[in-house]
Amino acid sequence: MDTATFLNALSTLLPELSIKTDQDSTQHWGKDWTVHFEVDCSAVLFPKSTEEVAQIVRLANEHQVALVPSGGRTGLSSAAVASRGEVVVSFDKMNQIGTFYEADHMVEVEAGVVTKTLQEYAESQGLYYGVDFASSGSSQIGGNIGTNAGGIKVIRYGMTRNQILGLTVVTGKGDILELNGGMLKNATGYDFRHLFIGAEGTLGFVTKALIKLEKQPTNLTAMVLGVPDFGSVVGLLNRFNKALNLTAFEFFDAIAIDKVISAGHAKAPFDSQTPFYVLLEFEAINDEVLDTAMSVFEHCAEEGLIVDGVMSQSVGQLQELWKLRESISETISVFTPYKNDVSVLITHLGDFINDIERIVKDNYPDFEICWFGHIGDGNLHLNILKPDTLSKDEFFAKCQTVNQYVFETVQKYKGSISAEHGVGMTKKPYLTYTRSAAEIEYMKAIKAVFDPNNIINPGKIFD
Amino acid sequence: MDTATFLNALSTLLPELSIKTDQDSTQHWGKDWTVHFEVDCSAVLFPKSTEEVAQIVRLANEHQVALVPSGGRTGLSSAAVASRGEVVVSFDKMNQIGTFYEADHMVEVEAGVVTKTLQEYAESQGLYYGVDFASSGSSQIGGNIGTNAGGIKVIRYGMTRNQILGLTVVTGKGDILELNGGMLKNATGYDFRHLFIGAEGTLGFVTKALIKLEKQPTNLTAMVLGVPDFGSVVGLLNRFNKALNLTAFEFFDAIAIDKVISAGHAKAPFDSQTPFYVLLEFEAINDEVLDTAMSVFEHCAEEGLIVDGVMSQSVGQLQELWKLRESISETISVFTPYKNDVSVLITHLGDFINDIERIVKDNYPDFEICWFGHIGDGNLHLNILKPDTLSKDEFFAKCQTVNQYVFETVQKYKGSISAEHGVGMTKKPYLTYTRSAAEIEYMKAIKAVFDPNNIINPGKIFD
Repeated sequence: MDTATFLNALSTLLPELSIKTDQDSTQHWGKDWTVHFEVDCSAVLFPKSTEEVAQIVRLANEHQVALVPSGGRTGLSSAAVASRGEVVVSFDKMNQIGTFYEADHMVEVEAGVVTKTLQEYAESQGLYYGVDFASSGSSQIGGNIGTNAGGIKVIRYGMTRNQILGLTVVTGKGDILELNGGMLKNATGYDFRHLFIGAEGTLGFVTKALIKLEKQPTNLTAMVLGVPDFGSVVGLLNRFNKALNLTAFEFFDAIAIDKVISAGHAKAPFDSQTPFYVLLEFEAINDEVLDTAMSVFEHCAEEGLIVDGVMSQSVGQLQELWKLRESISETISVFTPYKNDVSVLITHLGDFINDIERIVKDNYPDFEICWFGHIGDGNLHLNILKPDTLSKDEFFAKCQTVNQYVFETVQKYKGSISAEHGVGMTKKPYLTYTRSAAEIEYMKAIKAVFDPNNIINPGKIFD
Repeated sequence: MDTATFLNALSTLLPELSIKTDQDSTQHWGKDWTVHFEVDCSAVLFPKSTEEVAQIVRLANEHQVALVPSGGRTGLSSAAVASRGEVVVSFDKMNQIGTFYEADHMVEVEAGVVTKTLQEYAESQGLYYGVDFASSGSSQIGGNIGTNAGGIKVIRYGMTRNQILGLTVVTGKGDILELNGGMLKNATGYDFRHLFIGAEGTLGFVTKALIKLEKQPTNLTAMVLGVPDFGSVVGLLNRFNKALNLTAFEFFDAIAIDKVISAGHAKAPFDSQTPFYVLLEFEAINDEVLDTAMSVFEHCAEEGLIVDGVMSQSVGQLQELWKLRESISETISVFTPYKNDVSVLITHLGDFINDIERIVKDNYPDFEICWFGHIGDGNLHLNILKPDTLSKDEFFAKCQTVNQYVFETVQKYKGSISAEHGVGMTKKPYLTYTRSAAEIEYMKAIKAVFDPNNIINPGKIFD
C-alpha cells in the first residue's frame, strides 16, 4: 500500500476534495472517545457526496489503501480509530437534511447529520426522533447506524435499526446501493439494510438514510425512586411496565448519584439515601394515567420496593430529574472508568448482577463499581473506577482480568458483551463470548463479499 | 443428484424420521397456495428437532440433493413449491411452544407453530401477538419469517421482522446458528437474524424463533367509512393517523365489497354506496379517544372526504365490520384473480393508483379490477378478475402484459413489486424492477456463503 501515491491520484481525480494531512487533523479525526489505541492516521478526506465516496473507495481498492469511517467520533469501542496508518473518511461535510416526506413521517438525511440536529428538525415538523443518548450533541447519524445506537428510549422506540427505512451505501467494492427506499413493506429478497446497520463500517460506508419520525410524546413525566436492592429494581420494572406505556426505565446506584451530586451536576431528588435508584418516564396523557402511576407507586411502596420517590410536575422538573442520569458518564470520566456495556434477558438480570457483584468484591475489594443502565432493555453499564493507589496501566491490566470473569458470566446467561457500544477493537478479543466460531466465520465471509480487498475499516469487529 | 440413494442413506442415519413418497403426500406438501407451477416433489421429510434438520442438510450436501422448506403452504409466490424433483422438508412436526420468558414478554416457538396458535398462546398469558392476516389459521411461524409476513396490524406493530428477538437456523452448509438470543440490545457484529428473515428459505432453514409479545390492546374499535374517491382515502389516513393511535387502516373498493356482500360473507355497513371504503381501527382507551374519533369523523364529513360511516359499539360489531375486509380474498378466489401485491410511499399513493387505473382501463376495458390493501403501510393488493369470455390461459397471458405496465409504474415511484408476498418463483422475472443488478449480484454471493452447494430452495428469488 502506497498512501502517498493514492493521495496524489485522489487529488487529480477529485480536485475539489478537501484532504488534510497535518498532525493536528490526523490526531483529531483519527480517533473516537476511546483512549486504548495510539492514533496512526495518514490523512483525512472530506467528501461532499455519495458519488465522491464511491470514487474514493474505488481508487482505494486500486491502491490497496485502507479507509476508516469517521462520524461524530463519540464511539466507545475504537471502531472509528485509525491506528495502522489508514486514511480517514470524515462525513463532516455530508451533513444536509434532504427531502421530508410528510405523509410517510420520514426524512432523508446525509450520514454526517448530528443526532441533535435531526431531533430538532423532527420537532420543527411537529414530529419526534425516537433515539436519544448522552452524546446526541456530537454523534452523527452514520455512526449511530454503524453501531445500531440505542440509548434511553429503546423501551419505547427501539434501537436505531427500527428508525431506518432506507439506506444509501457505498460497498467496499465501490458499488452504490440504494436499500429499501423508505418502504414499510418490501419483500423482495435479502434486506441488506439490516446487514449494514450495526456493521461498524466494515462492509462499506453509509452515506444517506431515510429516517422514520414518530409522533411527539405528550406530557412526558418522570419519577425518580429510591430502591433498597437490585431485586426491587426488576420488580418495579415489571409492575410499572404492566400498568403504563413507559418511554424510559433507567437505573443507577448510590455511587453514581453521589458523584453526580458532589460534582454539582444535579440536585438530590429527596432526602433518603438508598443503594439503587430508578428513573422512569411515561406520557401522562390524562389524569387517569397519573392516577395509575400514583397507585402503582403506592402499592410498590407498601410492598417495600420503594423507599422514597418524586414525580416531575413540569418540564423543568423533568429535565432536572434526567440530569441525575444523564450526567453520570461525564461525572465519572475523571475517575478513569473501565467501561463495560453488557446485556442479558430481563429474566436473568437479578441473578446476573448478583454474580458480577460477588466476582468484583471477591477479587478486587479495593475497586469501586458504579452501575447504571437501561434496565428496561436488559442493558447494564458496569464501570470500574480507578483507585488512587493504582497507576492507569496497573488499573487497566487488572481490569482485563475482571473482564474475563464478567464475560464468562455474560456467557453463562447467554448475554451480549456489547449491548450498544459495538465491538470495534476494544471488544474484539471477547467476541467469542457472545458469537459462536461458526457465526464469526460467516461474518468474515460476508465481509469478503462486500469488501474483497479488505479496504474498509479492516481489523474492526474481527481480524 | 441421486435422490433414491439420499433417501436410503437418510433412513439409515435417522431411522425414526418420517418420510413420505406417495403421490398424495408429495402433491400435498410439495406446493403452496399458488397454481402457476406443476408440482414435482420426490419426497417429504418430517424432522422433529433442529439437530435432525441439520443432519438432513449435511447429508443433502453430500448427495447434492435440493431441499424445499414447507410450512403452512399458504404462500402466494411459489417459494414453497417443489417443481424440480426436490425433497420437501415439512415443519409440521416441529410445532411445540417452548419457554415463556414472562419478564421479557417473549416466548420460544418451533418453526411449525401455526400463527393462530401463537396468537392464542399470547392471549392465554395476558399478552398479544401483533401479526395477523387472513391465513393465520394455517400459516406457520417459519413461513411467516421466510416472507417477513405483514398483514393488517403493521401500522401499529410492524412486520414479522419486528417481532423476532432470536432465531435458530440451520444454514445451507448444515451449521446450527443461534442468532441474537432474544436480546433487545446486542451490538456484536452482523445481525444475521435479519438476513434470514425474508430470505424465503434460500439461506437455510429457520427451526425456532424467540418471539416478542405485546400488551393486549384495549377496547379495539373500528370505523367503516364510505369514501368518494381514492384521494379521500389518503386524506383520511393523514387526518386519522394524526389524531389517533391507529391499529389498522385498510381500504377496499366497491367491487370488493359488493362481491363480499353478494356472497353472503358480510352485511352492508350502511345504505350509501361509494367507490371506496376505509376500515380503520384504534384502541378506545377512554371516552376522550372516542370523542376525538367522532370529531375527526365529523370534520372529514364536512370536508367531503366521507359520504357515510359506522363505528363498532361492541366486540361483535367489530368482528362483523372486519368480515368486510377479511372475506375479500376468499370471495374473489372464484373469479381466478391475478394478484399483485405492491407498495409505494404513502406520499406517492394517489398518483400511483391513478396511473394504474388509467393503464388497465386503457388497455383492458373488459377487465374488472378489485383493489384492497393496507393503505396505512402503502401496500396495495391489485386483483384483476378474469372475465367469463376469456379462458384461464388467455387471461393469465394478458395479465403478464398488464404486469409489465404495473411494474414499470411501481418502478417510476421507486416502490416494491412484492410488499409482503415475497418473490419466490412468481415474481422472480420482475425482481429487477425493485432491486438493482448490483444488489442481485450481492444476493447471489450471500447465498453462496450460506449455501455453497445451492442445496436449499434453489431457483427461488433469483436463478
